[in-house]
Amino acid sequence: MTDQITVSIDGMGGDNAPDMIVGGLDLAVKKIGNVRFLLFGDEAKLSPLLAQYPAVAAVCEIRHTTDIVTNDDKPTAALRSGKNSSMRLAIDAVKDGEASAVISAGNTGALMAMATIVLRMIPGISRPAIAASFPSQTGECLMLDLGANIECDAENLVQFAVMGEVYARNVLGMSEPSIGILNVGVEVLKGNESVKKAAQILQNSNLPVKFYGFVEGDDIGKGTVDVIVTDGFTGNIALKTAEGTARMFAYYLRDALTSSIFSKLGAIIAKGAIDRFRNHFDPRRYNGAMLLGANGVCVKSHGGTDAIGFANAVEVGVNLVRRNVTELIKEDLAHLMADDLEQPSKTAAE
Amino acid sequence: MTDQITVSIDGMGGDNAPDMIVGGLDLAVKKIGNVRFLLFGDEAKLSPLLAQYPAVAAVCEIRHTTDIVTNDDKPTAALRSGKNSSMRLAIDAVKDGEASAVISAGNTGALMAMATIVLRMIPGISRPAIAASFPSQTGECLMLDLGANIECDAENLVQFAVMGEVYARNVLGMSEPSIGILNVGVEVLKGNESVKKAAQILQNSNLPVKFYGFVEGDDIGKGTVDVIVTDGFTGNIALKTAEGTARMFAYYLRDALTSSIFSKLGAIIAKGAIDRFRNHFDPRRYNGAMLLGANGVCVKSHGGTDAIGFANAVEVGVNLVRRNVTELIKEDLAHLMADDLEQPSKTAAE
Repeated sequence: MTDQITVSIDGMGGDNAPDMIVGGLDLAVKKIGNVRFLLFGDEAKLSPLLAQYPAVAAVCEIRHTTDIVTNDDKPTAALRSGKNSSMRLAIDAVKDGEASAVISAGNTGALMAMATIVLRMIPGISRPAIAASFPSQTGECLMLDLGANIECDAENLVQFAVMGEVYARNVLGMSEPSIGILNVGVEVLKGNESVKKAAQILQNSNLPVKFYGFVEGDDIGKGTVDVIVTDGFTGNIALKTAEGTARMFAYYLRDALTSSIFSKLGAIIAKGAIDRFRNHFDPRRYNGAMLLGANGVCVKSHGGTDAIGFANAVEVGVNLVRRNVTELIKEDLAHLMADDLEQPSKTAAE
Repeated sequence: MTDQITVSIDGMGGDNAPDMIVGGLDLAVKKIGNVRFLLFGDEAKLSPLLAQYPAVAAVCEIRHTTDIVTNDDKPTAALRSGKNSSMRLAIDAVKDGEASAVISAGNTGALMAMATIVLRMIPGISRPAIAASFPSQTGECLMLDLGANIECDAENLVQFAVMGEVYARNVLGMSEPSIGILNVGVEVLKGNESVKKAAQILQNSNLPVKFYGFVEGDDIGKGTVDVIVTDGFTGNIALKTAEGTARMFAYYLRDALTSSIFSKLGAIIAKGAIDRFRNHFDPRRYNGAMLLGANGVCVKSHGGTDAIGFANAVEVGVNLVRRNVTELIKEDLAHLMADDLEQPSKTAAE
């Protein structure tokens, strides 16, 4: 049997918190097993919910606070005046060793700022990135950053490439993941200064990263590469554009399959296949993004998700702890950077 | 009967040129009727193709040149040394009044640079934008810029908003189109400096533009607003991400509907509905983007399209000419700007 894992939960973050949070914990505890929660938030709101979900209540400890970080709070303001917020206290629990992972569906910018300050960064990484998997024609594709950093320079993008490579290898089990930088064209002259310079660094570096070059937006769905690197502004918009397109597609498919007696009959006969198809694209399946680069496991759930999606984010956090990901990334990064420092001098000596 | 329209064609631009170009003209002439082409490119390659398509040959005049602009050419290099290229000569034909519209599937940056220099800009617009329609749950949504400008300041985005509004009203027939700016969140504090400042200008301006505020990537598919404004880097990646997601969705749908004897039978019975559904999302239907802001009709086709997609781009160009769009935009912009200049002084005097 696996060791019991303690997960700290920001009980008040997300559009439908705290209801969907506690509902999500209920689904998570039934699926994952051997997990314990520290649930941060307003006891007056959380207690009645726990009464509805005895399976959660049995493994859950409420840590009362009425302070919350809202979506309108600037990260700097959240850092200054949010020291007693459910989000901050949940992160503190990881730093203090009370919990092994923190899950929040709240304000992305505040979560990133707090996790960076409280947990600190993995040595060699200057800024964290939000990473998550996308479905693709060939399986799945890891993309980062999905919204932690609005503007990124070339150095940030290179660090994202290294973190993404390590993550894809250690967590997704890819043996030699290929890395692409998201751009408006595949030609070397295309794009802004950051992507051009980052590509140049990755092309010429001794990092053992399998760099493919530039990829375009449609390469996400094609599965051209295993890891796609981008700044948080573009990545967030690409992520949500893909989600929105999938939702629109599903909407029109439903519409088509109910448009006539023939289509209804056909849909009933093909129901098993159509249900599997729909399930494959359910965005809740892909909910739960890791804040890669932080020195501790921190998972961001989509703010607008429901209990099923939140449960998935909890599962992502638990798997990251069970796979010992932060330590693996730290080790691999240390090796990668040592290699990178050694190689050029070797070449110079040849 | 409508007046005959002369369209100049860059015969050598695009991944599958010139074959798909001439094939596209064949489809276009059969559909549109009463159109004439000036076809710029290598006569040795174009003549044998015209021999295969007598309907095109009957209304087409080849203008021979062996110079071409490649996808690797920087816009500045194309401007300097591409004066005899098929792209440049096709644009010149519009400036010289020989043709009413130019269509190219070639290098986007070069096309924008050449069209801007040769055709010049509509007064009041400092940079052109690529605009095209996306399918949405509520119908369609116009988005700009889709790749003409890698970096945009707030003033560019405001001009795109004005152009998009005028275009949506005059060409798409929307009575009071709503405008949104693409961002990583809807809260006013989110995003980079350009989008924040542009939103502030649109919110406080006297321009009669129905400004909705910020929208996110998934609002493209939802159809939250009629016009979405963004910089060319983000817009290009959003466009291609949506295309790629639609293609992946179609791939898995095909896979699901052929996975068992039941799904195959269901698909046969529902074939009519499924075909209509597929046709609705065919990216070739949405091919053909206008270079909004240029003082003349210039349409950019997707470089990787086929004859069906290229024919659609030709049709977009012909419709823009028939609807007299450039003049309508010029008139409306002059009014809008006159209003904007009047309003503040009125307010100050009150």
